[in-house]
Amino acid sequence: MITKESIIRDLQTVRSRSPLVHNITNYVVMNSSANALLAVGASPVMAHAVDEVEDMVKIASSLVINIGTLSKNWVESMIRAGRMARERSTPVVFDPVGAGATSYRTETSLHIIKECKPGVIRGNASEIMALVNEKGDTKGVDSIASSKSALHAAKILTKDTGAVIVISGPVDYIVDDQSVIEVRNGSPLMAKVTGLGCSATALVGAFIAINKNFLLASAHAMAVMGIAGELAAKKSEGPGTMQIHFLDELYKLSDKEISGYYRAGL
Amino acid sequence: MITKESIIRDLQTVRSRSPLVHNITNYVVMNSSANALLAVGASPVMAHAVDEVEDMVKIASSLVINIGTLSKNWVESMIRAGRMARERSTPVVFDPVGAGATSYRTETSLHIIKECKPGVIRGNASEIMALVNEKGDTKGVDSIASSKSALHAAKILTKDTGAVIVISGPVDYIVDDQSVIEVRNGSPLMAKVTGLGCSATALVGAFIAINKNFLLASAHAMAVMGIAGELAAKKSEGPGTMQIHFLDELYKLSDKEISGYYRAGL
Amino acid sequence: MITKESIIRDLQTVRSRSPLVHNITNYVVMNSSANALLAVGASPVMAHAVDEVEDMVKIASSLVINIGTLSKNWVESMIRAGRMARERSTPVVFDPVGAGATSYRTETSLHIIKECKPGVIRGNASEIMALVNEKGDTKGVDSIASSKSALHAAKILTKDTGAVIVISGPVDYIVDDQSVIEVRNGSPLMAKVTGLGCSATALVGAFIAINKNFLLASAHAMAVMGIAGELAAKKSEGPGTMQIHFLDELYKLSDKEISGYYRAGL
Repeated sequence: MITKESIIRDLQTVRSRSPLVHNITNYVVMNSSANALLAVGASPVMAHAVDEVEDMVKIASSLVINIGTLSKNWVESMIRAGRMARERSTPVVFDPVGAGATSYRTETSLHIIKECKPGVIRGNASEIMALVNEKGDTKGVDSIASSKSALHAAKILTKDTGAVIVISGPVDYIVDDQSVIEVRNGSPLMAKVTGLGCSATALVGAFIAINKNFLLASAHAMAVMGIAGELAAKKSEGPGTMQIHFLDELYKLSDKEISGYYRAGL
Repeated sequence: MITKESIIRDLQTVRSRSPLVHNITNYVVMNSSANALLAVGASPVMAHAVDEVEDMVKIASSLVINIGTLSKNWVESMIRAGRMARERSTPVVFDPVGAGATSYRTETSLHIIKECKPGVIRGNASEIMALVNEKGDTKGVDSIASSKSALHAAKILTKDTGAVIVISGPVDYIVDDQSVIEVRNGSPLMAKVTGLGCSATALVGAFIAINKNFLLASAHAMAVMGIAGELAAKKSEGPGTMQIHFLDELYKLSDKEISGYYRAGL
Repeated sequence: MITKESIIRDLQTVRSRSPLVHNITNYVVMNSSANALLAVGASPVMAHAVDEVEDMVKIASSLVINIGTLSKNWVESMIRAGRMARERSTPVVFDPVGAGATSYRTETSLHIIKECKPGVIRGNASEIMALVNEKGDTKGVDSIASSKSALHAAKILTKDTGAVIVISGPVDYIVDDQSVIEVRNGSPLMAKVTGLGCSATALVGAFIAINKNFLLASAHAMAVMGIAGELAAKKSEGPGTMQIHFLDELYKLSDKEISGYYRAGL
């Protein structure tokens, strides 16, 4: 069960173990995702070459696959890395950026899920809906549908894939076959900074590296993300200062702040 | 005719319609261009795979092509996307980053212009001059020539291509066959932040998505860019804080600020 | 010999000559490296296409090769660029990011060194040790070994390659066949910002462009880096503000600050 204490405990573990998180992610967010991982206390590595992804997975504690700027060669690397992770029981989180926007993204997402069997899939509402052939309102890589509207799709997706599904939005839903955890943190300003959804996926990567209960680990990551975002928004005048303060708050996040801002539950 | 009011009106339209701007741009600025588009109120999407660029153009309101870190496969995608945009009358802005620095960049630029028929071409003085075989002083991707020195080249280029030409610099010139609009906003600190020229091109992409008068739309984008830059420079101690404040100011930009800082005209 | 005055002189030269520094570097840091080069007063250009790297090297004052997100095509471009630089006696600095983490990185690094004969190699302790087949504790692209523990490896590497070796860490060591310069500036917060090691390499690129004494030029770059980092850390609450203040401080760095913070020596 998610509690203030369970979030605090997992964050402490991320900070003390500093798991190596291997990212095969998109060009837009490579820098910001690496910085989010460093700020939360993890060690990021970005590597995508066919010639080394399997070796990198072997030394990593988790793998993040994100198709934000996918192309053929990259997808091959993602699948090789994902298969190696699966073979070694290394946790994998998958971010189907823009699924539903083009059929290439939807089909590639389904292919990656089939081949790599990620433990967690995190997307916005329209992405999650696209993966089960429901139609969510979308604009490119942004969802217009509410996160709640994708709950039905998430229930189907978790049943079909065995993965924990994270639907992010003003309220985040973390879904498995048995339960739905809601996380009600965050700020509207977060949607004005590019790639914070991808940062959320990267943070999930850090937490599943240290907690085998992927439902709880994902919820902890989303709570930490949302609370840091909320604290940052208070100090920010716009999306520029927001992205900077977000990293600072993530880095400084205290037990007291987690306890004070905690708004999650079944 | 450009007026304070015409700028304000177009900015309001960008914010209310939030057009989807498809970017095929360079690695250096993907993050900052996406953030500039979000800050001004548009929806950015970055996609470059041959397998999806045409589908992405179909759902986009405009297309930004930028060759800052070009290579063979990317150029193929740019041309496919540009042709599809042309077929659908989707507005295209082209940024010939580094034209003149290497013959590969100059030739590729001319090839893209020929195949995609962009509605707007935005570059610094030496880039615009290189496209008509005039020689401007350049240092890699930066121009040493004054923007005014490229006016002659811009006149030729607009006649040859039918595109509106934007020469950016301390004074921006927006040029078509009949008129030249000058925009005299901005700050020298803007040149110390990498990729703000590319942000300008992205903003032009947002404005041509909502205003078919490309001359005015481009001038509005450059004015908004320059005013936000001027406001940001006042709060900044160097290029680090500058890039952050620039996004904040772009996001907050008010009618009153536009009216107060307006320095444009024929 | 390194002195306060020698640092000040070289920084002034970088600012007045603004050398064009050609970077073939990784996706994660392209933006931050370009910004660091602009802030210090140099002119960055990023170009990696096989079709143009040789032409770009011809107009550049130095070349930075960084394998942070390497893949086959990029390595080919790096080698072509490096050979052209060697032919023209254009200074080259090489950053073997993640050498030791995968054999692909180690082998590619050795191949690049052999083909391009860089004048300077900058890495963290475990990377430098990996290049001479010593084993340093590593976590992906981060070193856990102290910079001092790689001094023995650096001595071998400089003898084998003729390159100046820069081991960065809490203390930086700049090593050639005859001397070791220590630079004792910087802040622990720097390791929490992704890619500042790559910024250091880029700054070395700016200084070797204007000073043929690569030992001194590299030490000057590391001192400027470290002092700017120290000044920035004082104003920062975390890694977000740190990266911003770092660029500001680099941009503003005064003779007085260099004199006040100078902590280097043989």
